[in-house]
Amino acid sequence: MGRRLYVDWRAGLALVGTLLALLSIAFVLPILVSLWYGGEDLLEFVVSMVVTAAFGLVLRELDPNPKPGAREAFFVVAFTWLFATLFGALPYILAGTGSIAQPINAIFESMSGFTTTGATVMETISVEEHSHAIMMWRQLTQWLGGMGIIVLAVAILSQLAVGGAQLMEAETPGPGISKLTPHIAETARVLWFAYLGFTVLFIVLLYCLQITGYATEMTLYNAIAHGLTALPTGGFSPEGASIAAFSPVVQWLFVPFMFIAGINFVLWWHMISGDRWALVRDTEFRFYLGAATLFTLIGTGILFFETTGAGFSDSIESAFRHAAFQIVSMMNSTGYASTDFNNWAGPAQALLLFVMFLGGSTGSTGGGIKMLRWLVILKSLRREVFTSIHPEAVRPVRMNGSVLDEDAIRGIHAFTLLYFVLFFVGILLLAVDTARIGYNIGTIDLVSASIATLGNIGPGFGAVGPMENYASFPWSSKLLMVLYMWLGRLEIFPVLVLLTQAYWRS
Amino acid sequence: MGRRLYVDWRAGLALVGTLLALLSIAFVLPILVSLWYGGEDLLEFVVSMVVTAAFGLVLRELDPNPKPGAREAFFVVAFTWLFATLFGALPYILAGTGSIAQPINAIFESMSGFTTTGATVMETISVEEHSHAIMMWRQLTQWLGGMGIIVLAVAILSQLAVGGAQLMEAETPGPGISKLTPHIAETARVLWFAYLGFTVLFIVLLYCLQITGYATEMTLYNAIAHGLTALPTGGFSPEGASIAAFSPVVQWLFVPFMFIAGINFVLWWHMISGDRWALVRDTEFRFYLGAATLFTLIGTGILFFETTGAGFSDSIESAFRHAAFQIVSMMNSTGYASTDFNNWAGPAQALLLFVMFLGGSTGSTGGGIKMLRWLVILKSLRREVFTSIHPEAVRPVRMNGSVLDEDAIRGIHAFTLLYFVLFFVGILLLAVDTARIGYNIGTIDLVSASIATLGNIGPGFGAVGPMENYASFPWSSKLLMVLYMWLGRLEIFPVLVLLTQAYWRS
Ligand SMILES: [K+]
Ligand SMILES: [K+]
Repeated sequence: MGRRLYVDWRAGLALVGTLLALLSIAFVLPILVSLWYGGEDLLEFVVSMVVTAAFGLVLRELDPNPKPGAREAFFVVAFTWLFATLFGALPYILAGTGSIAQPINAIFESMSGFTTTGATVMETISVEEHSHAIMMWRQLTQWLGGMGIIVLAVAILSQLAVGGAQLMEAETPGPGISKLTPHIAETARVLWFAYLGFTVLFIVLLYCLQITGYATEMTLYNAIAHGLTALPTGGFSPEGASIAAFSPVVQWLFVPFMFIAGINFVLWWHMISGDRWALVRDTEFRFYLGAATLFTLIGTGILFFETTGAGFSDSIESAFRHAAFQIVSMMNSTGYASTDFNNWAGPAQALLLFVMFLGGSTGSTGGGIKMLRWLVILKSLRREVFTSIHPEAVRPVRMNGSVLDEDAIRGIHAFTLLYFVLFFVGILLLAVDTARIGYNIGTIDLVSASIATLGNIGPGFGAVGPMENYASFPWSSKLLMVLYMWLGRLEIFPVLVLLTQAYWRS
Repeated sequence: MGRRLYVDWRAGLALVGTLLALLSIAFVLPILVSLWYGGEDLLEFVVSMVVTAAFGLVLRELDPNPKPGAREAFFVVAFTWLFATLFGALPYILAGTGSIAQPINAIFESMSGFTTTGATVMETISVEEHSHAIMMWRQLTQWLGGMGIIVLAVAILSQLAVGGAQLMEAETPGPGISKLTPHIAETARVLWFAYLGFTVLFIVLLYCLQITGYATEMTLYNAIAHGLTALPTGGFSPEGASIAAFSPVVQWLFVPFMFIAGINFVLWWHMISGDRWALVRDTEFRFYLGAATLFTLIGTGILFFETTGAGFSDSIESAFRHAAFQIVSMMNSTGYASTDFNNWAGPAQALLLFVMFLGGSTGSTGGGIKMLRWLVILKSLRREVFTSIHPEAVRPVRMNGSVLDEDAIRGIHAFTLLYFVLFFVGILLLAVDTARIGYNIGTIDLVSASIATLGNIGPGFGAVGPMENYASFPWSSKLLMVLYMWLGRLEIFPVLVLLTQAYWRS
């Protein structure tokens, strides 16, 4: 261990410290909520805020003038999410109510929030059991996570060129994505403007439904709470029944906003900058729209004609609504539920399982393998079939009119295979670990738990269904799923490289 | 359609005709069985034999001196299996007994046989319901399919260089695998010798168990029937309860022979030729052995400690036996069952699902993604993680001491991704099609039906469990699964290229 580390971990930790200090400001929201609702859990949030700020400012002192390179970028990305998770878990532990007061559960819930996964270990989800402030903090962690993801996807991963993320740059010769540090703040401001704008618009529209009498259950609290989790494709809800707690008109309003959350935010910037057709011209957007439309129609058909379902085929409207809602929600990794799809028949559930492997667009807050990667994979597989007949042929893969870099294609293939390897290993490890404690869990439950955490989706089927929770898993499984949410959200490589010797030494 | 076809389909069909004529000889076995058991279904088999031979000889006339190239090789491979399936289905249709008398079911059963899948649409599996001759023919189709696969894997696919199969050649600088047609017969004879040898040895040992009184239920008929389906990793059994119908000592004897069926047959040739350590030195074999051992131990632990299982944890011996049996059987795509694992708890089933994605070795009769591909994928993913830290580094992937061709790595990545795409699309199409007829099938049943047919495994979970059958699926699903068994068995490309325009025209 005497050898010099080649990672400038002081610079890395100093940057993480700065971000933690900024994060501590976010505790202002739950503090205000607490004050509004009579001061419940007020002290807990003040303590959490002070501790987080203090720790951040101390870390910052490690290097007053950090100059991070590419290697430190991996470090900063991975540790920012890890530290945010640990300090974000403080209020759950300090409040001491219910299952999430246990440290491993608090960390699970916090990682699930900051990674916008939405898998929960709360056994009783309600503002009566937990305080209004705690429930709002839980929602806010997802909104903050979404902010982080947008910067990560657009400004950082494209520079690190892992998992084919360099395509982002080629796709979007946009707002100053060129050098690592200097332009991050500038790019981020522009994209956050769109993110904030859609969030506010959604909150306002949700609240309008209450004011106009269409949905009395959509209180201002609920409107804000869901506004904070829709745009980050988060899926947390302060209602135990998720969006099934609301009337059809509310459910319909969720569909377009969930869909928007899965669109590349850079495209809005292009449109604002005068390129009116940037959205409809984008190949990935068209693929995303086409897939969502196709699978919604298939889902509508299955739910309407399914004779074995549990009463979901009462009308075309409800079949169409639940299909549109669940397809968009599961496909782009949001994870809200408009109904308990655990009661759906096998074929309808299998359709949801299928779309769970798709993901959102690059540059969106959606998780998973993502649309652009699937496009490149399908195009490159077509090329592979062609060259198996004409081995001598040189045939580039094109997208949006330009030739794709072969390194990017290789990176996408590797990323996707790594994703599947992790998915299968996740099933295996969860199986061994649940068997260890004799937890009677179904096969599809284990399969869906692996993809729901790695893909940052949240709910799966059976024991991890949309109205269930992850509390019954052993602590070791929870730790594994914390790792999986972390890996999945950061596009695997920034976390995985930290586990290699080569990263720490040259 | 006036343009010239660039595939020499006459030469291709003529070769298929020759192979069909040879196949017709195989009807001698069921004819002998029929005569032995009093002539049941005798005429049906004679007619099938004559029709097959006649059709084959007519096709042969299309080109008296066929000179096939690489493109025709795809054609011959794909159509040989298709025509064998169609003519092999004749006895089921002519005999007219039970569910398999319907043409689509007969074709399903026949494709399942020749691809060594072992998925069945027989609703009552017994020599009382169907004749001894029909049941033996069903077993024989798998043994013939296995013969075909060995030649395909070792002599043909490695030449066509699809899906990374060119590695086969690098791995095994062996018995004259060099030019396409001339050496096929020579190579085939050598490998078939090993295949036949193990088959005969297994039959003799099984029958010895009866003679010595260890397993009175293992009649000569049963010994031959299972000898014909173990070495091709086939998994058909004339017993409805599969190998659960036999005593523990019989089940134990199956384990090593199932395991052998998943080993590269070329290695036996090397050993016979004097290279005593060819087997233990082979990286793929060590990986295969290691995986089988590891997952057997895990499975034993799960079955023994699982408190929620249905009585399978009665003894360490039975936990170990069922784990070893089912892991080897499902991992290398054999598909026999030593117990109804539909009754296993979720974690134990999830372990089986996991190993279903592994496959046998290259050059064996096992299906699936295969050991060598997983080895290359794991090694190349390690490289990918390394180069994400050192983007400038050039780091070759090595196997058995030599550097792997980058084209072969790319081919393996593409093959595996294509495999997963087909797997997921299979789930989707089966879901839509079963919903269409209101078939109440579970989610995991659909998932496992897709991989069990594409991976040539046979049984899955739930409605397609080891003691169940595929008869309840709609005809369109059966057709899809026939296509999937065909695609999976021929390593996808030889079938897929036939569906492209580029194949038929230059
Ligand atoms: K989510
Ligand atoms: K099989």
